[in-house]
Amino acid sequence: MAVYTEVSDQALADFLTDYDAGALLSFKGIAEGVENSNYLVRTDQGQYILTLYEKRVEAKDLPFFLSLMEHLAANGVNCPLPVKTRDDRVLKTLSGRPAALFTFLDGVWLRKPTPDHCAMLGAGLAQMHIAGQGFDMTRRNALTTSDWRALFESPPQSDIDAIAPGLYGELDADLSDIEDNWPGDLPQGVIHADLFPDNVFFLNDQLSGFIDFYFACTDAYAYDIAICLNAWCFEADMSFNVTKARALLSAYNQYRPITADEYEALPILARGAAMRFLLTRIYDWLNTPKGALVAPKNPDEYIKILRFQRSVKTARAYGIDP
Amino acid sequence: MAVYTEVSDQALADFLTDYDAGALLSFKGIAEGVENSNYLVRTDQGQYILTLYEKRVEAKDLPFFLSLMEHLAANGVNCPLPVKTRDDRVLKTLSGRPAALFTFLDGVWLRKPTPDHCAMLGAGLAQMHIAGQGFDMTRRNALTTSDWRALFESPPQSDIDAIAPGLYGELDADLSDIEDNWPGDLPQGVIHADLFPDNVFFLNDQLSGFIDFYFACTDAYAYDIAICLNAWCFEADMSFNVTKARALLSAYNQYRPITADEYEALPILARGAAMRFLLTRIYDWLNTPKGALVAPKNPDEYIKILRFQRSVKTARAYGIDP
Repeated sequence: MAVYTEVSDQALADFLTDYDAGALLSFKGIAEGVENSNYLVRTDQGQYILTLYEKRVEAKDLPFFLSLMEHLAANGVNCPLPVKTRDDRVLKTLSGRPAALFTFLDGVWLRKPTPDHCAMLGAGLAQMHIAGQGFDMTRRNALTTSDWRALFESPPQSDIDAIAPGLYGELDADLSDIEDNWPGDLPQGVIHADLFPDNVFFLNDQLSGFIDFYFACTDAYAYDIAICLNAWCFEADMSFNVTKARALLSAYNQYRPITADEYEALPILARGAAMRFLLTRIYDWLNTPKGALVAPKNPDEYIKILRFQRSVKTARAYGIDP
Repeated sequence: MAVYTEVSDQALADFLTDYDAGALLSFKGIAEGVENSNYLVRTDQGQYILTLYEKRVEAKDLPFFLSLMEHLAANGVNCPLPVKTRDDRVLKTLSGRPAALFTFLDGVWLRKPTPDHCAMLGAGLAQMHIAGQGFDMTRRNALTTSDWRALFESPPQSDIDAIAPGLYGELDADLSDIEDNWPGDLPQGVIHADLFPDNVFFLNDQLSGFIDFYFACTDAYAYDIAICLNAWCFEADMSFNVTKARALLSAYNQYRPITADEYEALPILARGAAMRFLLTRIYDWLNTPKGALVAPKNPDEYIKILRFQRSVKTARAYGIDP
């Protein structure tokens, strides 16, 4: 829950004069999101989301993220659309931060997605991948395999072992395995790279849109699928729900056929995806100051997901017969 | 910034079925308010605020607060109106907490109120006091003079002196003075008791409404005025702006004439109001755990306000000639 940068009523009213967005009626900080400050802004013309980009998002990446949202929205993907100023800009400055105004996307995120929802997610993900194919900008994944070792080694070994006994050695071996077996030549394009349930909205039990593209990058499509397998197909007790995985993969495959190489790579990709989120959670767990506005997520969940994925030998474990 | 109780999409959808409030389109936690959890709820019929009452609000007081809002709204005061369920209730349970749904009030709170805004506040406060006169419920002020000594003595003396050297002795003497001189027979009625700028909305530079009635109680009207003098008339450098005070008092006096006794009591009431907010800020400062969702307010500001009010001998210091 996060509002890192306070915005004054006067600063916001001034900011809005550059847009044809109407006169300010109300604005309230939203207690969601970890990376940025978000406000819900109501004007006499409608409802908007105002995002102020905080330090963890690099300013040089913002044109990629904002252009991607414009491209996806123009190609049938429901996502927040950056609102343009009268002089055609989408990025401004507010309270000392880069800032952008977005259309408001209706929908709620699901605390307990069902297999049907996982199928809708799979279909939507494939459609997003296809819609992104005409997008001409690229962005390196800043959290890919080659970045993990440094992230892993940044805290003292004893801090990692304090999270779970022997965790350092366990992850060290995993990392080597993943580095040695990471596939290099899978179909690539724009991926979301952070498609957890809180970034997918549903309305009347239908997928209504995607939000939070601030990890989007150019990488293997199947890595995006792998992230979703981890984020959507484990139950609260961290058991793997193979029905959900099958639903997700089958629906995806209907819109963008999964190649044989992609199927084969899924277990190592899912293991790597588990490693990536485990490492950032460990980092945040160890580095978030006690008075911070955002409580760091406990890494335990992703230790369990990583252990499951380590045990997977073929994509058959995900309920499909490639 | 606070969302203490998480609400699931399904629990909220179920909750809404008891109301004629439309179908859920979105809901977002609001990063404002200290005592309760607040969500902004959008349905196909409009926008609402959902409040879940946390432990600091006593359940037995909720009928008073909710009935007061209904009474004030029915008597021309713009404030959130509790929405009734189909079976005519305003208080329900959600996620294990008492919960109520409110109409949404447009407006923004002012970070830098001007003397004109202070005049509008004064007029609005007097109108609220008059509108409350037909309200037939009462509630004892749970944070009045007789409660302050216990609050003051709950932390060790050394903790208070650690905030500012000698603060314990200073407050001890102040408290005795205030207890000895507190006026007992001023005009009473329903007061808001927490009318800080973030609880007063403005729209198009006009006062558009009041929120957050969860300290409302039966007490001296002039005490409510005194709280506002402290909360609205000090500049960022904690200098007292006598022009704002004069504007506030003059405008109030036009709608509800301030009696001679009230004028005479204002300095001690303002000193007591400063003590009341200083003591709760000290308490929160010393007792808020480091990982809390809400950062406690620094008590320094109210130490300075208290010192100013201690120096005031007559209400002439507030720019008026009673």
